[in-house]
Amino acid sequence: MTKRKNILFIMCDQLRQDYLSCYGHRTLHTPNIDALAALGVRFDNAYCQSPLCAPSRASFYSGRYQANHGIMGNDDAIQLGEKLIADYLNPLGYRTAVVGKTHARRSPEDMRAVGIDPESEFARTAASGGFEPFEWHEGLCPDLFLSEDHGYSNYLREIGYADTNPWDTRANSGVDKDGKLHSGWALRSSAYPAAIEEKHSETAYTTRRAIDFIRDTPDRPWCLHLSYIKPHWPVIAPEPYFSMFSKDDVQPAIDPNGLSSSDHPVIECFRKLEYSESYARQDVRDVVIPAYMALIKQIDDHVGNLINYLQKENLLDSTMIVLTADHGDYLGDYALGEKDLFHDVSAKIPMIVVDPDRYADVTRGTTRTEFVESVDIVPTFVEYAGGTVARERIEGQSLTHILRSPETPDGWRTFAVSETDYSERGARALLDLEPNHCRATMIRSDKWKYVHYVGFPEQLFDMENDPNELNDLGINSEYESVRAEMRNYLLNWRLALKSRVGLDADVLEGFGPEQDERNGIIIGRW
Amino acid sequence: MTKRKNILFIMCDQLRQDYLSCYGHRTLHTPNIDALAALGVRFDNAYCQSPLCAPSRASFYSGRYQANHGIMGNDDAIQLGEKLIADYLNPLGYRTAVVGKTHARRSPEDMRAVGIDPESEFARTAASGGFEPFEWHEGLCPDLFLSEDHGYSNYLREIGYADTNPWDTRANSGVDKDGKLHSGWALRSSAYPAAIEEKHSETAYTTRRAIDFIRDTPDRPWCLHLSYIKPHWPVIAPEPYFSMFSKDDVQPAIDPNGLSSSDHPVIECFRKLEYSESYARQDVRDVVIPAYMALIKQIDDHVGNLINYLQKENLLDSTMIVLTADHGDYLGDYALGEKDLFHDVSAKIPMIVVDPDRYADVTRGTTRTEFVESVDIVPTFVEYAGGTVARERIEGQSLTHILRSPETPDGWRTFAVSETDYSERGARALLDLEPNHCRATMIRSDKWKYVHYVGFPEQLFDMENDPNELNDLGINSEYESVRAEMRNYLLNWRLALKSRVGLDADVLEGFGPEQDERNGIIIGRW
Repeated sequence: MTKRKNILFIMCDQLRQDYLSCYGHRTLHTPNIDALAALGVRFDNAYCQSPLCAPSRASFYSGRYQANHGIMGNDDAIQLGEKLIADYLNPLGYRTAVVGKTHARRSPEDMRAVGIDPESEFARTAASGGFEPFEWHEGLCPDLFLSEDHGYSNYLREIGYADTNPWDTRANSGVDKDGKLHSGWALRSSAYPAAIEEKHSETAYTTRRAIDFIRDTPDRPWCLHLSYIKPHWPVIAPEPYFSMFSKDDVQPAIDPNGLSSSDHPVIECFRKLEYSESYARQDVRDVVIPAYMALIKQIDDHVGNLINYLQKENLLDSTMIVLTADHGDYLGDYALGEKDLFHDVSAKIPMIVVDPDRYADVTRGTTRTEFVESVDIVPTFVEYAGGTVARERIEGQSLTHILRSPETPDGWRTFAVSETDYSERGARALLDLEPNHCRATMIRSDKWKYVHYVGFPEQLFDMENDPNELNDLGINSEYESVRAEMRNYLLNWRLALKSRVGLDADVLEGFGPEQDERNGIIIGRW
Repeated sequence: MTKRKNILFIMCDQLRQDYLSCYGHRTLHTPNIDALAALGVRFDNAYCQSPLCAPSRASFYSGRYQANHGIMGNDDAIQLGEKLIADYLNPLGYRTAVVGKTHARRSPEDMRAVGIDPESEFARTAASGGFEPFEWHEGLCPDLFLSEDHGYSNYLREIGYADTNPWDTRANSGVDKDGKLHSGWALRSSAYPAAIEEKHSETAYTTRRAIDFIRDTPDRPWCLHLSYIKPHWPVIAPEPYFSMFSKDDVQPAIDPNGLSSSDHPVIECFRKLEYSESYARQDVRDVVIPAYMALIKQIDDHVGNLINYLQKENLLDSTMIVLTADHGDYLGDYALGEKDLFHDVSAKIPMIVVDPDRYADVTRGTTRTEFVESVDIVPTFVEYAGGTVARERIEGQSLTHILRSPETPDGWRTFAVSETDYSERGARALLDLEPNHCRATMIRSDKWKYVHYVGFPEQLFDMENDPNELNDLGINSEYESVRAEMRNYLLNWRLALKSRVGLDADVLEGFGPEQDERNGIIIGRW
């Protein structure tokens, strides 16, 4: 009997690629995630489609570029006609659920406008990105967002954290030696361990709920999106992880004084934002980064627990596992904080894929340098699940061919793309721009990283000779021909996107005068 | 008392700009449409957003570019979240209806997928582009398309045309002196008058139904989309119009042998399609073009009837009137038939706008050369109706400022854009392309017309010195800097489109760290 093919899709929020030991971190050891890499394939050149939560996730969940799904900021709603992972997998018999964060919602107003019943099946998963909300918590819960059905907050109250909003005042607050609480909304509070036991923290709770889901689904193939909120801020780590790292473990910042691209108006504008000014300070980095590392270490242990569970349940040889992140984190490199822009520390993501199929045995434990994008996840899952990839919509390429051969597949992309819209960030106001002019696009080839800004100078980096992106060749006249080539690639990529989704690919590919004639429509025959 | 502000939005299908006498036709006199131009403003540089029915209309009805609404062929369905004219006007108290054709439908499958009740208000107007289908007939009715609710066919049967599909076998068939019928699906049948009385023809019926609608709406402001099917094929004209024109009235073709751009693979491919080969023949043109002119002459008379009715009912001074077309028709110019491509005979459209407001008195009877696009119609209507233009979605500019001043408004566009996707046309198969590579975009400035093709050479014409577009400078190395400038304009235009529609403009324009902080989210503060 063939085993059910399950899918475990693990995402960490704001996890930099180089903060895992398999990707080369020198003071943070992540043996469990490294073991996944040894079991599968580690992609070194994986890029998110947009270095911001909701836009990036919309690409992960839809298989489409930001330009098409239109989610450009964290408050945008997924459009009604957009098809997401569950729309592809559920018809194949899957139970597709989320434990953790999605940051991908459809808007109640949009649904009301077209008359969708709020009690319908569609509406039931509309807030959680089409995933069944088995345990959905969005990772942000300031008082204004506190709702009755916030499962993690309810859990905390049930086990005795009696505060009104224990997510805020316990799980994401630090506590000093005198028992005084320090809100995680301030970076300085990262100097204290979480005011909560480790086993009650978001990461531990989320992992347990993932196991609950798997246990709850013995009879159908499942796709579980286990979506950790950490190491995203608030950067508050529980003991014993908190004490595992100190400022001695903090790696030197790249370009800590922000000397590179210092004449670029957009980059300079981002450097003036509060979060960049904070992270540009070494004293801040010395406090926050050890806590950031502790949160990753904690995730690594819980990933280990989960893999052990799969092994014990004899599910490991039938479960495809992906471990990735929605984007990275500047952490003060280039005198920047947060994400949004396209330096590798922000736009590159970890991407580890374990394909249990025996044809994938030839690639186990290898690393690959092909360009891989977030949009590749949906077609990989659909193909693994035995479905047909909707070519008219899906813009990614299934990774199966890479996972099952040491050779690069014919026609694999030679450029990676990432897009950003910074209209929701402080830079828009500082630059006094129209929202839809706050756009930039990265094109990365083997040798070059090119960034096009609407209305601002281009950037260009020689990634072979300047992998740290210190020497911006964006306005250097010697490189005009390189920029012209990248611009040309960008233009043709953009114009050929699958913005048309109304017809199936086989219909589109069959169109012509014969088709018209079958319908009785004859055009221009004498 | 202020009068109700009505909107009469007249569209003709496949009407070339230069086939109206106010636009310079020498043998076809259209005094009624000319009178509208004398009453309002005639735009000489009006372009459709796409020279194909459904894509063009989707832009007219949504105020958005093809790249965004994604309607690229005649079989594509309008996406569920797209807002159309009625969505903007009905909340302002309007009754927004169509008489005639829309070619803009939402898909029943899309609606089913999200659980929209087929009996809902939304579903009721889903097939007719959001317009109330007061009298909706799509202008194409081969036997396969014949349905019980095809009002015009029902009408024909009721008045005694007993055939199963009288649209096909009467209204759109010619009849010779011996009473023999000739199907309008063959161009040679244009040599005969329609097998129907003029008063029963589509144009006459449609006009009467428009008057019925106005009469039926005495108590609310209305927007009527009067959408004539003609002079679109089948090119069958009823008497007495049929006999008004002969081959002596046919104007010489531009570049009849297709010598221009003859080394362009896409253009040459279109020249090989049956409809181009037919229209390239002068004997075909001599038969079809007189019938095409007759159909326009008939429309002109009916527009006159309708305007007389408005005057009689004292509605003329409170009704904004637009007369336009979805695209032109090659009619054998450049050895091409149909539309799809960007020569002015295909992509330019008539655009006459009568604004009854007294502030528009200063422009009555003038002609304007500003670039005007189909996407301008929605914001013009919304502004006229007293609404607020949804800046986050609407990509056009309201014409009101042009209509009410002889000066060009500050910030008016200096480039017009039109887009095409030829994947549904025979050229895709001949060129063996992926559907989403069948894309081309036109950028028109005062001096230049530039066309970018995905995967094929560019085209460039000097419109000042070569207005007939005979000398293609697309691969002439002397003009590389011009092409680079146009390419750059195209790239920035494309990247700054309003593909993001999830948030209102005032929300987008207010975003920044302060907004986050009001929600209790503080990012990166030490």
